Amino acid sequence: MKSSQYLLATLREQPAEAEIASHGLMLRAGLVRRIGAGLYNWLPLGARVLSKVTAIIRQEMNAAGAHELVMPLVQPAELWQQSGRWDSSGPELARLQDRHHRDYCLAPTHEEVITALARQELTSYRQLPINLYQIQTKFRDEIRPRFGVMRAREFMMMDSYSFHTNQASLEQTYQDMYDCYGRILQRMGLEYRVVEADSGNIGGQVSHEFQVLSGVGEDILVVGDGSDYVANIERAACLSPKARVVGIAEDLQKVATPEAKSIDSVSALLGVAAAKTVKTLALRGTEGSIVAVVLRGDHSLNLSKIGRRDEIASPVELVDADELKQQLGLPAGFIGPCGLKIPLLVDHSAAHLTNFVCGANEEGYHLTGVNWGRDAEATATGDFRNITEGELCSDGLSRARFVRGIEVGHIFQLGDKYSTAMAARVLDDKGRQKALIMGCYGIGVSRMVAAFIEQNHDDKGILWSPTLCPFEVVLLPLNFGRSQVVRNAADSLYRQLINAGVEVLMDDRDERPGVKFTDSELIGIPYSVVIGDRNLAA
Amino acid sequence: MKSSQYLLATLREQPAEAEIASHGLMLRAGLVRRIGAGLYNWLPLGARVLSKVTAIIRQEMNAAGAHELVMPLVQPAELWQQSGRWDSSGPELARLQDRHHRDYCLAPTHEEVITALARQELTSYRQLPINLYQIQTKFRDEIRPRFGVMRAREFMMMDSYSFHTNQASLEQTYQDMYDCYGRILQRMGLEYRVVEADSGNIGGQVSHEFQVLSGVGEDILVVGDGSDYVANIERAACLSPKARVVGIAEDLQKVATPEAKSIDSVSALLGVAAAKTVKTLALRGTEGSIVAVVLRGDHSLNLSKIGRRDEIASPVELVDADELKQQLGLPAGFIGPCGLKIPLLVDHSAAHLTNFVCGANEEGYHLTGVNWGRDAEATATGDFRNITEGELCSDGLSRARFVRGIEVGHIFQLGDKYSTAMAARVLDDKGRQKALIMGCYGIGVSRMVAAFIEQNHDDKGILWSPTLCPFEVVLLPLNFGRSQVVRNAADSLYRQLINAGVEVLMDDRDERPGVKFTDSELIGIPYSVVIGDRNLAA
Repeated sequence: MKSSQYLLATLREQPAEAEIASHGLMLRAGLVRRIGAGLYNWLPLGARVLSKVTAIIRQEMNAAGAHELVMPLVQPAELWQQSGRWDSSGPELARLQDRHHRDYCLAPTHEEVITALARQELTSYRQLPINLYQIQTKFRDEIRPRFGVMRAREFMMMDSYSFHTNQASLEQTYQDMYDCYGRILQRMGLEYRVVEADSGNIGGQVSHEFQVLSGVGEDILVVGDGSDYVANIERAACLSPKARVVGIAEDLQKVATPEAKSIDSVSALLGVAAAKTVKTLALRGTEGSIVAVVLRGDHSLNLSKIGRRDEIASPVELVDADELKQQLGLPAGFIGPCGLKIPLLVDHSAAHLTNFVCGANEEGYHLTGVNWGRDAEATATGDFRNITEGELCSDGLSRARFVRGIEVGHIFQLGDKYSTAMAARVLDDKGRQKALIMGCYGIGVSRMVAAFIEQNHDDKGILWSPTLCPFEVVLLPLNFGRSQVVRNAADSLYRQLINAGVEVLMDDRDERPGVKFTDSELIGIPYSVVIGDRNLAA
Repeated sequence: MKSSQYLLATLREQPAEAEIASHGLMLRAGLVRRIGAGLYNWLPLGARVLSKVTAIIRQEMNAAGAHELVMPLVQPAELWQQSGRWDSSGPELARLQDRHHRDYCLAPTHEEVITALARQELTSYRQLPINLYQIQTKFRDEIRPRFGVMRAREFMMMDSYSFHTNQASLEQTYQDMYDCYGRILQRMGLEYRVVEADSGNIGGQVSHEFQVLSGVGEDILVVGDGSDYVANIERAACLSPKARVVGIAEDLQKVATPEAKSIDSVSALLGVAAAKTVKTLALRGTEGSIVAVVLRGDHSLNLSKIGRRDEIASPVELVDADELKQQLGLPAGFIGPCGLKIPLLVDHSAAHLTNFVCGANEEGYHLTGVNWGRDAEATATGDFRNITEGELCSDGLSRARFVRGIEVGHIFQLGDKYSTAMAARVLDDKGRQKALIMGCYGIGVSRMVAAFIEQNHDDKGILWSPTLCPFEVVLLPLNFGRSQVVRNAADSLYRQLINAGVEVLMDDRDERPGVKFTDSELIGIPYSVVIGDRNLAA
């Protein structure tokens, strides 16, 4: 390719919209351009990188025995109503009506369509296991699209879906995909961790994320210092305190704490460590109820963990002060577990406290010397909080350390969530009708490019690996417009490289050497060959 | 690939939804499945064919110097408002709002986005000409999706856009694309014609369609019998009658024609040939006006031709009887050019009549002996009708014959329609700001597969060409489950073919020979090898 005939669109200045390094570099190197919030054009240089990513994914997925298919982006509401996700999805599911006023959505993921397909085409265990994948456009109406293609609304994804009659077969394919994803990320040259993860809106019990390590990642990973423990903080289990501290129970006292609505202010006012206080959060429960969750004052709520409780409405939502006042007569900022008439879910750490401080359920007052059993009773206890740095990890072997990651892949053991809801059954080897057991697996194709750049750049530009580079070699002929010697040498080398099957870009523009060097370093092609009168003479 | 591990989804019965041969065969061979009106899954077998089509297109487009990029399907309304197509497009443009109630559409074509990109990235004639293409999902909310993927709502298309500073350069790239499309269709093994076409909603003056000949095609092509003339009927020019027939002007007479509202009934009642009558159609004009169009009684209106008149509103719309009565006091079925107070566009053929019959603008009456000049005056004359079979073609060399075609490609010389509307300018070689001159070019990727099957099938199934076949060879081992000899021979041949790089499908299912033969013929893989105990022994 010759630069003079190519759409090179490098920028000298960092665009104001760029929030992270990869975003700025993708704009400056001319890989992408924004056309609206979370909507991007991939310019030819970027499209070449994308095609490298998809080629690697196709090779590895085919080698792992998966079959490619293509499903539509625009999907009838009926299928989503059958799975229940038409109602359970929020505004991130983009909806539209056609000219006949029928409802459709733009697919953020394809469980419904593939399950409907399986329901129709799979009838016998003899056809199983089978793993079907596609590389396709998806749309998710993110509340806050940002970081360029890292969190775009329209994006490219490889998603696959496997079908089985039993858990063992699912686990086998799950392991195959686990290994396949590892090979894909390794071939791309990414540093990553596989972490236990929360299944979220997709469903199922077991899931793992493939996280590319990066300071700008939106996910917090809990890494065991000195063991191989690693989990998304959403999922990282907290160990229960080993034994309750035994001591003398103090008397329950009500103390005035005017204005002290936060743990910090209560703690300062009463001279008590935050770890000896509890905070009580009011969450929206199912069927119009309100549920209290009690945590130690120095801990934070884990939305994934609490979201898995049947009592809690999905998505997890805090009840606001006005509603608390109206519904229960409770003053926000001064709530506590004593005498509350709503279900009380108490985190293990809070449940192990003695003589603690909590809100008095009365404006301007807290209680001290509170003890479980005598003063308040938990409806249930459990692990509802985020682990903190330095704590013992759930493997019992190491202390937690936090690192940040960019989620580029996620694999799920779905089980029968969709197949049961949508009546997708096959005959098993004993002739019985059985709901299909499913797995689903996804890789963010366009996000992968941004994640790679986050890990591989310097202050001059991108540092492509040989597997993802848009071109393998760039020729930089200096004084190309005027020196016949340079032109001949460059043209000759260019032809030789093309004939040898090398992907080569020749910068034949009539530009100063400085411009060519700067662009070349910004774009980050692995090998560059400078051709000038002086080095040709030498 | 082994059939036992593949999603073969052949059907014995013709599905009721199939209207044409390709539709039925694509369902029966298991290439596609419908998930909603005009929405299709491409099963693995179909996806393999699609990938053959896209590979050929990529090779030829790259060889023609075009560069691949990727643009979004979801597009902000602003861009479509700038071009004017947000308002001029009807319900075929699918629209949606995001969570912030901002307007978007699903792109049926990408002129707006590419012009916005060009406006931003192209600044100088030095960057031109350039031709950018993508292979991508599109959505068009067809009023009547039908014929399977032939007229789907979501479909795959290759579209490209070229930019120039002058017409000569546009014409060069246009010719390159014309030739490139020819090579693509030839490589696929399609019988096609390139025809002059109407530019429709896309715009521009010059355009050609690539039409695959087929009796089920929705387009009528006018072919010159004995010359190489060929045009879409939308565009096929009609020659004006050479000279006016000279004769004695009859007297104008008003005759009672109760109930005779159609040309046929008037013609029968008065004993006059339809070709000696005229019909007067009332069309919606621009700015609330109504315009009359006068054709010979035996001719039909050409919507494309009349739609290009400035006086006529777009899209072309007939004014109904009620409105005619209310607005102009005219009785539908009895309208004629005499004394009409609205603009009168008269087709050449009608304008050459003498002593003709027309409506009297009075319920139940017609006029006879009507003559232009004396009795009525045309506002303008022109070519507003469809050519008829047997007429002289506009090349003056041959008689028109009608054949049917499936439009699989369309190329346009757009000119500056979008660049002027969207202010996309570059500096030319004299340093002047100039609106970009554009071309645009499209191939229906998914439709191409259906068009191929229409031309290449027999009563047993599809007849793939070597370039589009999902697999090159199918192995049909008989008695595979029980004969070790057959199994060994089949496995050995399978491995040899795989190692030789042949795309092979081995039907290792435990099925009767008849089932394997039937499926094999239905799917239509070019070469099949039967492996049985008997022929192994021989």
